[in-house]
Amino acid sequence: MRKVVTLGEIMMRLSTPTGERLSQTKQLSIHYGGAEANVAVSLAHFGYDSYFVSKIPSNPLGKAVEMHLNSQGVHSNFLLKSGERLGTYYLETGIGERSPQVVYDRKYSSFSSLKVKELNLDEILQGTSLFHVSGITLALSSELRELVLLAFKKAKDLGVVTSFDFNYRAKLWGQQEAAEAFKPLLPFIDICSCGELDAVYFLGIEQADQALPQEDRLSYYYHFISEKYPNIKYLTSTFRKVISSSNNKLIGNLFVDGVLYQSKVHDIEPIVDRVGGGDAFAAGILYGILEGFQPQEIISFATAASALKHTVHGDCNVFSVDEILQFTKNETGKIVR
Amino acid sequence: MRKVVTLGEIMMRLSTPTGERLSQTKQLSIHYGGAEANVAVSLAHFGYDSYFVSKIPSNPLGKAVEMHLNSQGVHSNFLLKSGERLGTYYLETGIGERSPQVVYDRKYSSFSSLKVKELNLDEILQGTSLFHVSGITLALSSELRELVLLAFKKAKDLGVVTSFDFNYRAKLWGQQEAAEAFKPLLPFIDICSCGELDAVYFLGIEQADQALPQEDRLSYYYHFISEKYPNIKYLTSTFRKVISSSNNKLIGNLFVDGVLYQSKVHDIEPIVDRVGGGDAFAAGILYGILEGFQPQEIISFATAASALKHTVHGDCNVFSVDEILQFTKNETGKIVR
Amino acid sequence: MRKVVTLGEIMMRLSTPTGERLSQTKQLSIHYGGAEANVAVSLAHFGYDSYFVSKIPSNPLGKAVEMHLNSQGVHSNFLLKSGERLGTYYLETGIGERSPQVVYDRKYSSFSSLKVKELNLDEILQGTSLFHVSGITLALSSELRELVLLAFKKAKDLGVVTSFDFNYRAKLWGQQEAAEAFKPLLPFIDICSCGELDAVYFLGIEQADQALPQEDRLSYYYHFISEKYPNIKYLTSTFRKVISSSNNKLIGNLFVDGVLYQSKVHDIEPIVDRVGGGDAFAAGILYGILEGFQPQEIISFATAASALKHTVHGDCNVFSVDEILQFTKNETGKIVR
Amino acid sequence: MRKVVTLGEIMMRLSTPTGERLSQTKQLSIHYGGAEANVAVSLAHFGYDSYFVSKIPSNPLGKAVEMHLNSQGVHSNFLLKSGERLGTYYLETGIGERSPQVVYDRKYSSFSSLKVKELNLDEILQGTSLFHVSGITLALSSELRELVLLAFKKAKDLGVVTSFDFNYRAKLWGQQEAAEAFKPLLPFIDICSCGELDAVYFLGIEQADQALPQEDRLSYYYHFISEKYPNIKYLTSTFRKVISSSNNKLIGNLFVDGVLYQSKVHDIEPIVDRVGGGDAFAAGILYGILEGFQPQEIISFATAASALKHTVHGDCNVFSVDEILQFTKNETGKIVR
Amino acid sequence: MRKVVTLGEIMMRLSTPTGERLSQTKQLSIHYGGAEANVAVSLAHFGYDSYFVSKIPSNPLGKAVEMHLNSQGVHSNFLLKSGERLGTYYLETGIGERSPQVVYDRKYSSFSSLKVKELNLDEILQGTSLFHVSGITLALSSELRELVLLAFKKAKDLGVVTSFDFNYRAKLWGQQEAAEAFKPLLPFIDICSCGELDAVYFLGIEQADQALPQEDRLSYYYHFISEKYPNIKYLTSTFRKVISSSNNKLIGNLFVDGVLYQSKVHDIEPIVDRVGGGDAFAAGILYGILEGFQPQEIISFATAASALKHTVHGDCNVFSVDEILQFTKNETGKIVR
Amino acid sequence: MRKVVTLGEIMMRLSTPTGERLSQTKQLSIHYGGAEANVAVSLAHFGYDSYFVSKIPSNPLGKAVEMHLNSQGVHSNFLLKSGERLGTYYLETGIGERSPQVVYDRKYSSFSSLKVKELNLDEILQGTSLFHVSGITLALSSELRELVLLAFKKAKDLGVVTSFDFNYRAKLWGQQEAAEAFKPLLPFIDICSCGELDAVYFLGIEQADQALPQEDRLSYYYHFISEKYPNIKYLTSTFRKVISSSNNKLIGNLFVDGVLYQSKVHDIEPIVDRVGGGDAFAAGILYGILEGFQPQEIISFATAASALKHTVHGDCNVFSVDEILQFTKNETGKIVR
Repeated sequence: MRKVVTLGEIMMRLSTPTGERLSQTKQLSIHYGGAEANVAVSLAHFGYDSYFVSKIPSNPLGKAVEMHLNSQGVHSNFLLKSGERLGTYYLETGIGERSPQVVYDRKYSSFSSLKVKELNLDEILQGTSLFHVSGITLALSSELRELVLLAFKKAKDLGVVTSFDFNYRAKLWGQQEAAEAFKPLLPFIDICSCGELDAVYFLGIEQADQALPQEDRLSYYYHFISEKYPNIKYLTSTFRKVISSSNNKLIGNLFVDGVLYQSKVHDIEPIVDRVGGGDAFAAGILYGILEGFQPQEIISFATAASALKHTVHGDCNVFSVDEILQFTKNETGKIVR
Repeated sequence: MRKVVTLGEIMMRLSTPTGERLSQTKQLSIHYGGAEANVAVSLAHFGYDSYFVSKIPSNPLGKAVEMHLNSQGVHSNFLLKSGERLGTYYLETGIGERSPQVVYDRKYSSFSSLKVKELNLDEILQGTSLFHVSGITLALSSELRELVLLAFKKAKDLGVVTSFDFNYRAKLWGQQEAAEAFKPLLPFIDICSCGELDAVYFLGIEQADQALPQEDRLSYYYHFISEKYPNIKYLTSTFRKVISSSNNKLIGNLFVDGVLYQSKVHDIEPIVDRVGGGDAFAAGILYGILEGFQPQEIISFATAASALKHTVHGDCNVFSVDEILQFTKNETGKIVR
Repeated sequence: MRKVVTLGEIMMRLSTPTGERLSQTKQLSIHYGGAEANVAVSLAHFGYDSYFVSKIPSNPLGKAVEMHLNSQGVHSNFLLKSGERLGTYYLETGIGERSPQVVYDRKYSSFSSLKVKELNLDEILQGTSLFHVSGITLALSSELRELVLLAFKKAKDLGVVTSFDFNYRAKLWGQQEAAEAFKPLLPFIDICSCGELDAVYFLGIEQADQALPQEDRLSYYYHFISEKYPNIKYLTSTFRKVISSSNNKLIGNLFVDGVLYQSKVHDIEPIVDRVGGGDAFAAGILYGILEGFQPQEIISFATAASALKHTVHGDCNVFSVDEILQFTKNETGKIVR
Repeated sequence: MRKVVTLGEIMMRLSTPTGERLSQTKQLSIHYGGAEANVAVSLAHFGYDSYFVSKIPSNPLGKAVEMHLNSQGVHSNFLLKSGERLGTYYLETGIGERSPQVVYDRKYSSFSSLKVKELNLDEILQGTSLFHVSGITLALSSELRELVLLAFKKAKDLGVVTSFDFNYRAKLWGQQEAAEAFKPLLPFIDICSCGELDAVYFLGIEQADQALPQEDRLSYYYHFISEKYPNIKYLTSTFRKVISSSNNKLIGNLFVDGVLYQSKVHDIEPIVDRVGGGDAFAAGILYGILEGFQPQEIISFATAASALKHTVHGDCNVFSVDEILQFTKNETGKIVR
Repeated sequence: MRKVVTLGEIMMRLSTPTGERLSQTKQLSIHYGGAEANVAVSLAHFGYDSYFVSKIPSNPLGKAVEMHLNSQGVHSNFLLKSGERLGTYYLETGIGERSPQVVYDRKYSSFSSLKVKELNLDEILQGTSLFHVSGITLALSSELRELVLLAFKKAKDLGVVTSFDFNYRAKLWGQQEAAEAFKPLLPFIDICSCGELDAVYFLGIEQADQALPQEDRLSYYYHFISEKYPNIKYLTSTFRKVISSSNNKLIGNLFVDGVLYQSKVHDIEPIVDRVGGGDAFAAGILYGILEGFQPQEIISFATAASALKHTVHGDCNVFSVDEILQFTKNETGKIVR
Repeated sequence: MRKVVTLGEIMMRLSTPTGERLSQTKQLSIHYGGAEANVAVSLAHFGYDSYFVSKIPSNPLGKAVEMHLNSQGVHSNFLLKSGERLGTYYLETGIGERSPQVVYDRKYSSFSSLKVKELNLDEILQGTSLFHVSGITLALSSELRELVLLAFKKAKDLGVVTSFDFNYRAKLWGQQEAAEAFKPLLPFIDICSCGELDAVYFLGIEQADQALPQEDRLSYYYHFISEKYPNIKYLTSTFRKVISSSNNKLIGNLFVDGVLYQSKVHDIEPIVDRVGGGDAFAAGILYGILEGFQPQEIISFATAASALKHTVHGDCNVFSVDEILQFTKNETGKIVR
């Protein structure tokens, strides 16, 4: 079994029941997740020896995080247990025309206080096939920016495949600050999840002609990036057409060797829970690449994984490789009996 | 803060869980509401000093009504507490092609026994900006018809803006009886919620050519009404296209100074709870008028308020002015984080 | 009241909450049902003296089955109580693009051990208007195949109307074995529920030209069958277009006297629970025939019954004849108040 | 199977979740029950052909009542379906020191409008072994008092065993009125459930010396009654020591042939739902008498039945004769595996 | 109606379902409360014009707090809306021998950042009958200590009755620090809630002979305090004998004019929710004093209020004065119907 | 970290909500557990490297078992995945005087078909500190009896500490058969959980004088056993006094070096879930012995662990060593804040 490693924050999500506002509800459901934790979970369900590196408080909520990760098959050996609190956020579930609302309560979290010296990167990355981080992690402290840069360099030294997802969150930091944090990492990245806006705002690429079809604009940006960073062998993103909070249309994109591959359109309706949908996609991409799938297979697999994730509660993509492959073949919605 | 007053019945609604019939279910959820109470709730959330006038029994269910109104910011000073029982009704929740079913159990209610002499209309209407009643109230007793007529007259004497919603319920009374109750009120009304059928059945206007577009037919009726009752400065209604119990398309109409203004089409799917949707619309209209919005702003605001109401359980429109305004601008269904 | 009889297995269904996988959930909801039991339930709600013949264990789960049937108005006089266990199955509820999954745990059930000699067919069929069995029953043991053949013969001797639904389940047996079991029954059948695939696989009819419209292909098969088995006076089936697990389009077909009658298209969205939808259709057909409805009325009634079934949890069609007839007339989704 | 008949009102009970007040709760659970309906349910579970005579509205709540009775094995043939509404009541569940609170909303019910001429008592009582009514029924109208008297007379004419339970409810009528309604019935009663207070208030027996042990006082009253009404062969009651809403100690009393038989003390803690506990006791007495049990067996069986009822939600005693007999023998609380 | 004012922090409590640990649960129930907020709620239910002074964030959780207070009849005029976050805490519900566990997550709360200059104490205390604060408030910042001292001084200047509850929480601060904060307040206090340990640790009174009965020890301390602080006219506390998390025995103590009055023992079993039990007691004391009850009546009323609070979920004592008085008279646990 | 191994069956438990019978309920909660699996879970929570050896079906229920074990920190490496079905059982939850009822549906399970040759005992037991099996495993097949004997012999060869719990279940096999299966194992056992009845029925020891105190009778049996099997260094059991299904009193016994050590009496009320209580005790004993606790510490720790288990739902003792040790010191039921 291949060892894979992701590093980031894991938070407690407290969600309202459908059709109740946060200011009204008397009941919240709990899910634990975070961009990189969710990728680790998917990769564990895909059969890898999956490690998640983070820092959580030494209290019952920290214990809950650990039990959650273990239940999904993720190793918790590299979880540090100290600091003030677990990052939390409240999700007022959206429906139809009404958007979901996030109320963050993540400041002062244990993870945001993580110091470079607390981790033994050599031990963590030893024998690893893949190392993945997303841009949220960089937003949390300058020390974390330093840590992630160090880790990516170390990973390249050790021959580990590296993956980075821009994952910009406007509620956490500004575009300028983000751009400065992202750029130094790029020379050390093999696989990069990057959308149109990321290309314009963080890489400073001149905006494409908006009259062009969306896939042509994306190709334009991806060509530009591959020329500037020839180390980046895979560029990925999704087109998500938000019909409503309950209905999205999803297409996956993968750019490799100068060619853009696209998945079929998944018509996701109703949406049970879209949190983690992007992470399921990212994990699908990583799995396809590690397993040497053909580009079209990779993007079909990853987008199918993401579509399935939208049909279950929680951040986790709890589907096996076989189930996802079968899903890409089945007629939609046929009962199996 | 402006004082606003509504008068009517508030009932206990007992709803089945989705997908269960009333004859099967072992569990009912409770909501308290009524046309005028719901308008008072919306206006309280919009920041007004909102008073609801009614009569409820002096028992735990009456107490529940009072706590409900208070929680939404509505003043309960003018709630009389006596009489036999709280009006109740059972709602078998509809879904898809299956319609919701209402089983009324509202006879002998405290409110239906309300006497004119029990209320001090002078005190109630003193310093009030707006007074609103709906046609359901008139259906409940002849004494209530007398009371409402008195109240509207008193309101006009005191310079209060008056609003009336036809709100005809065929299960409560006949068209003939309703028409006789409605007509005497109209000379005292500033804002009138009135649909096509109301115009034909209760105002005796000759039916428009059904081949005309729906908005032209409505304009025809509204012109007719404004000529007959020049005191009515605002005429409003909604076009609700019922695709199914789970999907309605909603357009708001506002007729002012001889011009019909329409909102965009809201595609409401899925519908969480449509009870109170009309009252949210009414309250939005009243707010826009009181605040001096432009006609197009008024109708956009009111229809957005109604659309949002459909996304939450219960009769109450628990959205602030800011939230509704932002909703009219947002891309539908985009997660905010 | 007319006496009607069905014979088959009734199982406990354990379903996951929406949006949870079977491997994750901590809660399962219980429904009791089976193809023939569900038909008996519908017929009881339609006002018949409905009897269900089966064998269940003499334990609390058997007691639960009996209480379930009684609550729906089905007589439990012909329920044998012995054997090892109640057949059970787990349903991972599907949603959107994700299909429902069935995990059967029905082997060694009391019903599958039913012996011919345990039943007194004379008593059971005495004074009966209708006898109905589905193909699932035949899949469970060779003894059951023998029993069903005997019962159909006896029914014909006694002048009972006979009904058979192919209802093939690939998880239970092979096509070959099924074909051999089905064929001997057909000369004794008056009403037969049979789809395109049934015609090809079990009756060995040459496949129709796939370029033909679906209804023409069906007519072709039905003509063929009626010629071969002139005793079969009614042939029925549904066209179910599976848009997703949450959205099906349903058309009912009835072939009588060489003419194919079709219902309107029911757009079923969202689907609450499709289990039992086919049985509700079958029962609707049987009712229409027994009551001497016109063919177009029969197929409209049966398809409406099936569409309504999809809007409630559980296998049972808990709607009365009046409710179904009103549903065929109502505007979809209009609130009744 | 012996036919048994009870006559009375059945209501919808709406109960709060434990630890929530009626004025706070958003959820109510539904149970259907009434003194005589509950007795009919017990007798059905004991294996009798049990009929319940009543009048319910012709609406979904009436349908729910019928399905409830059927599910428990009670025949609904003698249920009239008309009138204004189903009697309802709200139960604020008590716990510990806090008492349960009942809010009645039963006026204007279908049953309270029942007329003598609506029932065919001959048909109802034909071939019946037992006829049972409780005092609540008499409280609801003078017509019902007339009906019950007629029914008891008719029953005696037909050789039916008659049973009456005083079951006085102070919220429904005064002691004086009750006494006048009860007395004319007594000459026609074989089995009478009657407590100390009943004896004093309704039969006008001089109060016993309060210094005497409770069982001696009861014997005094029972001797007095048996002398006055020698037709009453069985007198029964329970001593219920209310430690708290969650803990009662229960003793059953049976007086026959001048001897008082008592059950052991059942220490009921915690109490799940005490509604229907008295009816379970009554049904246990009736069963024991009909089956010719010895007096000590009767009172043990009936009190055990009542104790078991307290351990399940709802008004119904859903235990078989075997289960109750085994319960009287088992060590309390031992797991059976 | 008398105006009463309390000042303190209100937090969101997130509680586990009974029998689930915080590290396991997928569901949390929400209650809002805090020592002083809970007192304000009780006083509102007792009929006072009750104001709660605090600072909450301007977000949906702050909105929820306001709706909660309003629903209980508490005025929210003096709620400031700014700062970083709402204080939260997690309660792992205890049962039987297992203690409840609190995980605090209240640092950096809006209230803890409250500045003296943000409040207009003159306006707040104007026309007020009573002002109440508990020791928890002092633990949160030195600025809050300053504020509370100022407020008590101002209150005395304005002739307001003052009440202070030591309410020491070891997880928030040390005994030394607390003692230094408490002492300067005492000369301005009329009513003081103070237990044995408070007397020893914070007032430095020499420990009483432990061999003495508990009430004698308490009298000893109270005599001591009244001599030192003759302004303190009422001293109160409870004896809570913790049999288990599900069973407490509670006695209330009130010391006035040199005499110790005690309530009867309330045997609280099972305990639904003990959070807020002390605040209900405090509010009962305050009500009794303001209304001029006799000392024995005061302590009976207050302890009954506290006992009732233990029977409902949430921090709030949702009982009226009448209900509490009736409770002190009723036989425990008798059903009222 | 020490490696520990247990071997046995793990089943799905489907439990009714409190106060509902199995024949009534519409909802079941799921727990996974088995005697040896539960011991493995406890030992994982105590910090050991815990392995559970079993055989489960290769379907979603098997997947659920694996996720359950992983979430509790148990290694699933030695789980075989094949066979027909997962053993299940239904638990009708008892309360008060009413006993819990178990309905087994465990025949034909994957585990019961386990063959000796399917396991590599050398690999499994390599480097192991402890190996534990209970008597239930022996009841399931003769092959399993053979396997367990082989495993215990191998364990002794490898110097592994061995533990056996008689755990006799009358519903699974007869006493005679059990005795024959148990005896050959005893020479290879270090730690034996054995009660009075076990000693009499399975070891054929003459019954002690019933007039003796219970602990003296137990000592008599234990002396006898230690003489006969000097290899058994530790004998353990509990005295469980079943007051009711909701209240048990529990004492733990440990016999070592000829001395009987007893824990204090734990008064467990209310009982949340007693399933797994014995396994928690067993695991506590094993931990204490492996860690070299003093005998009195061992028995206090183990009984405390068992008492805590009764306060949570599910079979698992989800408490850490620190929590259990603190529980043995804390005052019962005190809130920690």
